[in-house]
Amino acid sequence: MNSSAAAVTEERLAAHRRRFDAAFAAYFTGLAAAFDAPSQSRFTPQCLELLRDLSLRGGKRLRVVLLYEAARLVTTEEVPGLAEAALSVELLQTHGLVHDDIIDDSPVRRGGPSTYYAYRHAFPDRERTALGLAVLAGDLAAFLSLRVLLEADVPGPLRQAMLEVQTRAATDAVAGQILDLERDFEDLPGEALLHAVTEYKSTRYSILAPLRLGLLAAGEDLGLHDARLRRYATLVGICGQLRDDYLDLFGDDTALDKPPGGDLRAGRRTYALRAILEQADAADRAAVEAALGSACTPGTVERVRDIARRQGTDARLRADLTGYAERAAAEASGWGEWWREEAVALFTHLPLRIARGVE
Amino acid sequence: MNSSAAAVTEERLAAHRRRFDAAFAAYFTGLAAAFDAPSQSRFTPQCLELLRDLSLRGGKRLRVVLLYEAARLVTTEEVPGLAEAALSVELLQTHGLVHDDIIDDSPVRRGGPSTYYAYRHAFPDRERTALGLAVLAGDLAAFLSLRVLLEADVPGPLRQAMLEVQTRAATDAVAGQILDLERDFEDLPGEALLHAVTEYKSTRYSILAPLRLGLLAAGEDLGLHDARLRRYATLVGICGQLRDDYLDLFGDDTALDKPPGGDLRAGRRTYALRAILEQADAADRAAVEAALGSACTPGTVERVRDIARRQGTDARLRADLTGYAERAAAEASGWGEWWREEAVALFTHLPLRIARGVE
Repeated sequence: MNSSAAAVTEERLAAHRRRFDAAFAAYFTGLAAAFDAPSQSRFTPQCLELLRDLSLRGGKRLRVVLLYEAARLVTTEEVPGLAEAALSVELLQTHGLVHDDIIDDSPVRRGGPSTYYAYRHAFPDRERTALGLAVLAGDLAAFLSLRVLLEADVPGPLRQAMLEVQTRAATDAVAGQILDLERDFEDLPGEALLHAVTEYKSTRYSILAPLRLGLLAAGEDLGLHDARLRRYATLVGICGQLRDDYLDLFGDDTALDKPPGGDLRAGRRTYALRAILEQADAADRAAVEAALGSACTPGTVERVRDIARRQGTDARLRADLTGYAERAAAEASGWGEWWREEAVALFTHLPLRIARGVE
Repeated sequence: MNSSAAAVTEERLAAHRRRFDAAFAAYFTGLAAAFDAPSQSRFTPQCLELLRDLSLRGGKRLRVVLLYEAARLVTTEEVPGLAEAALSVELLQTHGLVHDDIIDDSPVRRGGPSTYYAYRHAFPDRERTALGLAVLAGDLAAFLSLRVLLEADVPGPLRQAMLEVQTRAATDAVAGQILDLERDFEDLPGEALLHAVTEYKSTRYSILAPLRLGLLAAGEDLGLHDARLRRYATLVGICGQLRDDYLDLFGDDTALDKPPGGDLRAGRRTYALRAILEQADAADRAAVEAALGSACTPGTVERVRDIARRQGTDARLRADLTGYAERAAAEASGWGEWWREEAVALFTHLPLRIARGVE
């Protein structure tokens, strides 16, 4: 893709994000007005406000881009149901983030307090109440993500199909989160295990589901294309995870919405950690193992980086990432046979853009 | 209702429970075989097993009875969709119990370990992992409760209507749980607040939703009957909560699936506690307030009981409960104008049966 085509892509991504962020804000404004809660409750509006804060605080909205561009594979017409699908996808993400930050005991998310820690700050002497309210906030986001689809003004069978995609994606994500916790019981998790974590924990709901929802809404018959969507999603999912794991270790603060080294502090056996351990001699292995855990300081993170660089693991991870991105791009570049060239070009470019994030 | 009619009711309740329990067990067996989880995962089958354990461990299945009998208000024919609705209702209940036991830090549920504590026992040195897995188990049950409805072999509009009822009930229950936590910040919560907690936290999903689902499946037009269903549900909900609050303080171990005094230990400002505090003089009030909290022993529970009995609060609570039961029965007894007498008789009898639980 030449530089002017790349510029078009950036503009399209930004336009999707802007449009969606406005719609998401309007959704929460409407929700606050219409939500059926006991009139006495001050905690319910507070909960909706925290969900709104976290939801609008951001992210790159890659899911929304995938969703809208999947529909553009088929048509440039306005597609009913896409707006609700986008809200559903991002509300499910909010649900996942809220509960994930409880599970990981994370104070920070998207450059602000996690919902869990927002509650802990609000109720400093009632830790159990804070935990409870955070669990409930995540539950609420999950149910809202399905209610918004139920309200989509589209034919019944489409609504049903979209609900099947989203509830399936939601259970896959839970299975992935469970496997993610399980993974950290392994000293050196195999690559197949890490791929499985990525596939279930993020690819299915973050990439595959938006693609499916966009194509469904645009009237495409998924059965004809499911295998190629899965191949593409799996490759892009691994790209994204490799990039996140790489940046968490090698990135600087400005590239992240949280301090680097979070995976080390959480004892998470990521692609990056696995690659280091696999190459390490006994002394390095011991040093890296000792770095895992909540006592890990910025200095410890630096020592692990040094070991990795000495081994060449950082370059190897970047090469891996580029390899997956190129395979994903190759997969999408074949879609021109069925779908609109302009959107196909975007899907071809997207994985390379994800990989560029580590350069 | 004479004693032979009461015997017929007991038989019907037992038959619903037996039939449902068999179907629920079969559901979990099928789920374990078909669930799409990474093949490496041992934690995912363990999670399904814990959900199965908790789900099959019981309860009175009042929700299932309400659902099936609501359909019988209209017809004695086999009603498609009821079986899936029953699974959905009880899976949503499992979701609520799993998260509730995290929120309340409850070790025991339905006479066995709560899911949270089952995980804590399984991972004694990884408390955060145990918490995380319990959050995820509850999430999984929530999504499964909606997936089972999506799979119901009924016309699309009915499936949509049932999903609307269930997702609405689910968000109401979250709002109720939030209000429940909020309530314990009040020294003496007003009766209106306690009624609101009951309505949102349990009535909507435990009574109103099963009634609506049963009638919908049987082809009834809900719009014509919604006000009377709501009145009945609200009264029965208050009955059930009054009974639970009463038994938690005055019941003996055999009437409960957990030791009495749990509400005092949790500092929960229940109908029973409110009634005691309202009547108490300064000394009694101080004694009761001092009893609240995790340090509350069986001896402390006994002292609060003594104060309550001296005030006549126990008798007053029983009278309240009977009053609500009679109003609910009166409401149902008017349903003969629209619905089958035999099922109307059961709905008339049911609240009186709930109230009898404290005699």
